[in-house]
This record gives sequence, structure tokens and C-alpha cells, in this order.
Amino acid sequence: MAQTPSRSVTISAIAAEAGVSAPTVSRVLNGRGDVAPETRERIENLLRARGYRRRGSRAAGERVGLIDLVFNDLDSPWAVEIIRGVEDAAHDMGSSVAVSAVHRRASSTRQWLANVRSRASDGAVLVTTGLGSDLRSELEELHIPVVVIDPVGLPDLAVPTVGCTNWAGGLSATSHLIDLGHRRIGFVTGRPELWCSRARLDGYRAGLETAGLDLDPDLVVPGNFDYESGFRAGEQLFGLAEPPTAVFAASDQMALGVYEALRQRGLRIPDDVSVVGFDDLPQARWSSPPLTTVRQPLDDMGRLAVRTLRRLRDNEEIESPRVELATELIVRDSTAPPPAAAGD
Amino acid sequence: MAQTPSRSVTISAIAAEAGVSAPTVSRVLNGRGDVAPETRERIENLLRARGYRRRGSRAAGERVGLIDLVFNDLDSPWAVEIIRGVEDAAHDMGSSVAVSAVHRRASSTRQWLANVRSRASDGAVLVTTGLGSDLRSELEELHIPVVVIDPVGLPDLAVPTVGCTNWAGGLSATSHLIDLGHRRIGFVTGRPELWCSRARLDGYRAGLETAGLDLDPDLVVPGNFDYESGFRAGEQLFGLAEPPTAVFAASDQMALGVYEALRQRGLRIPDDVSVVGFDDLPQARWSSPPLTTVRQPLDDMGRLAVRTLRRLRDNEEIESPRVELATELIVRDSTAPPPAAAGD
Repeated sequence: MAQTPSRSVTISAIAAEAGVSAPTVSRVLNGRGDVAPETRERIENLLRARGYRRRGSRAAGERVGLIDLVFNDLDSPWAVEIIRGVEDAAHDMGSSVAVSAVHRRASSTRQWLANVRSRASDGAVLVTTGLGSDLRSELEELHIPVVVIDPVGLPDLAVPTVGCTNWAGGLSATSHLIDLGHRRIGFVTGRPELWCSRARLDGYRAGLETAGLDLDPDLVVPGNFDYESGFRAGEQLFGLAEPPTAVFAASDQMALGVYEALRQRGLRIPDDVSVVGFDDLPQARWSSPPLTTVRQPLDDMGRLAVRTLRRLRDNEEIESPRVELATELIVRDSTAPPPAAAGD
Repeated sequence: MAQTPSRSVTISAIAAEAGVSAPTVSRVLNGRGDVAPETRERIENLLRARGYRRRGSRAAGERVGLIDLVFNDLDSPWAVEIIRGVEDAAHDMGSSVAVSAVHRRASSTRQWLANVRSRASDGAVLVTTGLGSDLRSELEELHIPVVVIDPVGLPDLAVPTVGCTNWAGGLSATSHLIDLGHRRIGFVTGRPELWCSRARLDGYRAGLETAGLDLDPDLVVPGNFDYESGFRAGEQLFGLAEPPTAVFAASDQMALGVYEALRQRGLRIPDDVSVVGFDDLPQARWSSPPLTTVRQPLDDMGRLAVRTLRRLRDNEEIESPRVELATELIVRDSTAPPPAAAGD
């Protein structure tokens, strides 16, 4: 053999040459802070000089320094919120985040698995509304821990999931409108097959019931979370003989669709109609008027998913396979008492 | 035949043999045009003959399957647009994308470099407004090809960059408003130290000049690309004794800030005032009314960056170290003839 390929350079060889222990070299490789600066520099110089590379020479249990984050699609407006939280927590562990989109296609999922198999991964955070059991068992086989971030609510997965309190969020939005004096409150649903949609709808129902108000079925209009469905729902609600004085939409995007339906009818927010959304995406803050909405802590959900992965990796026990973070009502300028309430 | 391990061939060895400096070899490796043709040919022949391989690519079939995508921060609303394009093109190559945020902090950048050193990378796409020369030289040392996506315009980097035609975009937005009959057109600038801001402002100037209109300095108001600065600019413009009938803001976020300033003054868009933005983020489509804006093809810029990385890796020549993709005016509902124009 002409020359030693650099991949045969081991951590122990580097450690011996640097006069430190192998774990110290690992700490430097993992970007941890608890190594004296001059030692770090000496080790880093050696790693460079000897051309150390981890791939292919990874010992069992050694970290790759890479966490996978998998979306169905990257066009959901909340994707970047989750990426930010996952990246932040991974950064604290000295890991990078590999972001993939599988587009609900089996071929893309297969390719992602092939990638993971060849380059290895410390764990996978899946953001999904339809995690296949095939994928789950493949990852199990590769001994890659999995956590599902689940902003839409799938309570029955066989893996740890992180979600938010959808029902409580629906209740707080509805109660806020009732407290302002609204009695006819429209609701635009999310995709009916998703648990989070049902939970938000049930929160709306509970809010009405608590206030002794009857639910008028005409005021509950189906949507699918996206802008266009919100616009159509707004047209339907304000085409009613007795339209609502407020609308609670189960996503910010649908709330913005309602905004546009109202604008086209010459109705002002909040003077004529109040609107509440759900998510608290950045565009809620930048809408005109700024949107009152239920905050779903997507970045914190990302952080928690990574911390859960780390505990799974370290064989620590996790308290619950399903954790729901609290939602919070953020009151901005799109809600006010109804016009008629002044004379009540 | 025993193959010479390519990694032992260094840039300095090639430079010595070719009788040039190491930076000249790097320039050839980075596909830059400023090397004399015969020198380039001599160096390319040597790189081939000595079996030089970029570290990220090594030999055929030895790819890591990982492309790094580095942001300063993940809170810019256009981050996900770029991630989508980069992920898409990387997927076509069978690669994953490692997304990192370095938060303009040296410690985060160091950690990212430590990660890259330990897990390797096929190349790095940097999205940045301030790429340090330290980072550049470190990556060069690791033989990791680099492309900079540069939505804000840094024309003088020593690495290939991908941008968009900011000047032409500024011109098309301004001409659109003039064609509608506007004569007093406000402009909200981006951060003045960035080239893209100057290019958009100069496009605005060129649009006015072409139509024989004088630039009124009162109508050019400084902003910094974010929502709040747009709101303040809107307040300033519509506090003028002779306010404009249209506003062109150098980012969508600032345009949405202008929306809110107009709403608070009871002015309607587009009936009273027309507004144009720049970027075409998703929220431009979801604003009320939907925003006329200049589309910056961020996802295509991401795709092109990855394709350029692949060509660098394969030692193919690239046509130009700087490529600007075309911007496009997207006309929606926020622009109309000025109120006075009816009587013109």
C-alpha cells in the first residue's frame, strides 16, 4: 500500500500524539467548550495535519454530529420556525441539522433513508402528518432514535411526539371574543381528518358552552388551513343573512384569507368584524391590522424534540411519549367589541 | 494500478510545480475568470495529472452526501425559500442539506467549522451579508468548495456568488407605477450599506429619469428592510404636506409596514395609495390586498448555488464568478391609477 488513507487516523492515535485522553479529543470533535484553549488548538492542529475524518471510522456509540429533520414539504410557512428551534438546540449539542423534504413520495423517503444509512445520523426529528410504519421500522433497524414534531396532532404514534395544546388554544381564542361582547362567532375549521382540527373546534365549542351560547351550525365553515380556504370561508360567512361579528380561524393563513374577503366587502377589521387566527407565524405580526392569534410555540417544540432525542440516545427515561406545550393567546389589533355592543 | 491518494496532493505543491502562487491555484479551483488562459490550462493539467481532488469529492463514489447551507440567522423570512431550493437541488444529487445558523458569532462559526471538519461536507452554500475572510480561508484549507447566495448583493467576493438583478427590479417597479399615472412616488430604502439597496434605489431613480420626472428628496425615506422601518417610513411619507400617491418599498416586509401606516390613517390601498414591495415572499400573496411586488427567485438561487457547487467539485469551469438571476414584477391588487388621475 502506497500511503495510509487518512480515514485510518483514529481518535486514540490523535490523543496519543497530543498527549491527552481519547475523550478529550472527542470533546473537541463534538465542539464542546470544556477543553482548555491551548489543548483544543493543539488537537485541532493535529486533526487537520493528520487529515482525521470521522466517516467510516466511527466507533459504536460515537456521535456523528448530525441530526436529521424531515418535513413532508418545505412550503409550509411554519417550517422555518421549527428549523430555527431544532438548529438552536442541535447547536448547543455541537450538532448540525440535516433538513430534508420527502414530498410524501416513497422514492424520496427511500433516498433519504439511503443517505442516512451511508452518512449515519444521531437521530431524526420527523415533522409529519403521515409517518409511515415502514419508515419507523427502517429507522428502528438503523438504531436511529426518532421524535415526531406534530403541530397537527397525531396522538397514537409508537414514537415520542411533541405537540401543543390545541383544545386549550381554541378555548382561549373563543373566550377572548366572548369577553369582548361577541355572540355570533364564526369558526373556520382546519382539515377535518386531523386531530388538531377537531381539538381546536372542540375548544371553540367549549368556549361557547361555558358562556351559555348555542352553536349555530351555519357559523362553522370547513377550511383546510391554507389562505384560499380562509378566503372562501370568509365569503361564505359574510354572505349569510345574519353574518357573524367575529371569526376565529384555525390557522393564521386562513385568518389572512378572511381579512381579504372582508376587505373586498368593504368591512373593516376590527371596527366591523373581529378576527382571530392560530399559530402566530411572523406574518400575523405583519398583517394589517396585526392579527390577534393563538401562539403555537413551534421553535420550542423543535428544541424539545432535540432534547428528547438526546435523552433517547443516552438511554435516559422520558416522562411521557407525548408532550404538549402550552399555547398562548396573543392579543393584537384585529379584535375589539362588536359594533352593536356599544348600545347593549 | 496503485492510485495516488489524491488528498496528499496539496495546493501549494501544485502551485510550486506550476510556478505560480497558491492563491492562483485556488482561483482556478474556484472557477474564477481572472487567471490568464495559458496559466489556467497549465494548472488544470497539473491538477489532473497529480490526481488532485477536492476533499469534499475525493474520488468518484466517495461523496459524503451532505451539502452545508449556512445562514447568519434563521429568522429572515426568506430563509425557507432558499432552503427549499437548496434542498430540492441537493435531493436531485442524492445529497442531504445541513442547515446551520452562525448568528454572526465567531464561536458559532468555529463550531460549525469543527462540525464540518469532523463529518466532512461536499460543499458549502453560504447565505450571508458578511462572509469573513477567515472562514473563506479555512474552507479553502479543507478543500470544501463554496458558493455564496447573496440576496443583498456583495459583488466583490473571491468565491462564486449567486444574486438577482436588483437594479432592473427597482426600475420595473417604478415604471409600473409611472405607467399607472403616478407622479409622486415614495421610495423606502433598504439598509444603505448594502449594495442591493443602492441598486434598487438607482433603479427607482432610473425609472423617474426615463419618464422625465425629478427626484424629490423628501420622497426617499431610509429603511432597513424590516417591518417596523417600513411602518415608520409610511408615517413619515404620509405626514408630508404633499404626500406621495404611491410607495415603492425595497422589501415586502417594509411594504407591509407601509400598509399598516396607511390603515392607521384611514387610507385605502390601492384606492387612495398604491404600494409595491420587493422579494415576493409568501406573505406578499397573503396580504390584504395582495401585494404587487418584485419577485426575487430565492428558490432558484438556491438551486443554482448547488449546481455551481457540483461543477466546482467536478472541476468544471463556471462561466462567471457572479451570476444574477432575473427579477420579475408580479402585479397583484395593491397598485392602481392614482385618485387624481381620473380627472387628468
